[in-house]
Amino acid sequence: MSKLRCHIAISADGFVAGPNQSEENPIGEGGERLHGWMLALAAWRESHGREGGEVNESTRIVEETRENVGAGVMGRNMFGPVGGGDWGVGQWKGWWGDDPPYHDDVFILTHHPREPLEMEGGTTFYFVTDGVERALERAKESADGQDVRLWGGAEAVQQYLALGLLDELELHIVPVLLGDGARLFENLASAEIELEQIRAVEAPGVTHVKYNVTRG
Amino acid sequence: MSKLRCHIAISADGFVAGPNQSEENPIGEGGERLHGWMLALAAWRESHGREGGEVNESTRIVEETRENVGAGVMGRNMFGPVGGGDWGVGQWKGWWGDDPPYHDDVFILTHHPREPLEMEGGTTFYFVTDGVERALERAKESADGQDVRLWGGAEAVQQYLALGLLDELELHIVPVLLGDGARLFENLASAEIELEQIRAVEAPGVTHVKYNVTRG
Repeated sequence: MSKLRCHIAISADGFVAGPNQSEENPIGEGGERLHGWMLALAAWRESHGREGGEVNESTRIVEETRENVGAGVMGRNMFGPVGGGDWGVGQWKGWWGDDPPYHDDVFILTHHPREPLEMEGGTTFYFVTDGVERALERAKESADGQDVRLWGGAEAVQQYLALGLLDELELHIVPVLLGDGARLFENLASAEIELEQIRAVEAPGVTHVKYNVTRG
Repeated sequence: MSKLRCHIAISADGFVAGPNQSEENPIGEGGERLHGWMLALAAWRESHGREGGEVNESTRIVEETRENVGAGVMGRNMFGPVGGGDWGVGQWKGWWGDDPPYHDDVFILTHHPREPLEMEGGTTFYFVTDGVERALERAKESADGQDVRLWGGAEAVQQYLALGLLDELELHIVPVLLGDGARLFENLASAEIELEQIRAVEAPGVTHVKYNVTRG
């Protein structure tokens, strides 16, 4: 069965982006420190058209995150500037350049209708205005039996978690204290969600912990 | 050099106690789920005078937490009822029974002066009213070259973290979402603290991640 999976880098104190996110700095102050372990990998560099890099225990983890993924879902803030602008009807094509690293259909949760945006490299952004459940349905149709990857950000993950729609969650726990920013786990007080630890992997500068997620 | 070390169980969403802590339920609703992995261990049962239990990857982790510890520091709420009572001048002897599992001197952070309280099994509780730094100094004197263990709770850990006085932090990350309660990492926005991941260990129902802590 097609799963909804989220693999996300998180600080030891629970933030997936630093404070003061802005158009200039969409991952917030210090947020780039969450991704250093990944950007150092040959596996990451190669998929972004670059040479060199490390091979270590994180390599197979990152490779696995890409396996059997047929489509994606993404919160609005991960696509466009926090707090606005007119990208909904304008020319904004996302933070991710002309050839985004998704290579399949990505469904953006938004309140602003917009025509689909076809990018280079197989990525097409679809803008879904009729709710997170519908976005997931459309992504699953597009994935055609493969899994759907929930790219983030924090709010989108919270929504799918609270609804019991997330099936798998992998935290890449980074030895950094951001102190403030976007907390991954928030607004979940009434959600009866159970986690089952599938595995944990120690790697240089990061610990990967993977959970099965079920309704309680 | 004598270190200040904290080894603490934490939910995947960052809580070290559940919501609605009370005299009847000092670890809050669901808080007992943070400790199930430990209570199942033969190593824990034996140290509490019980037989049986499991031996697994957590065993050496728990044994290590006890090694080279000569004294402890503890926040007020870990000793007595949240929000009050007159234990400061009364007969309250802590949550931990007549023979507490500490077996050495434990320094309680409090605003209420009280004479030291000698328990069975080698534990003596000292009540320190002149600040967290002084409590640590006294604990280090008592530890006589061994390490000092910071038992919790969340507030006490935050205070020592923010002051740059914590040297080692081990998180026992439990696959549970508590949704609410006492967050370990809070009030740290202005603390410039760096973590270095020393190791991570996968064990049944828990992942142990150990950090060196330094001032940034």
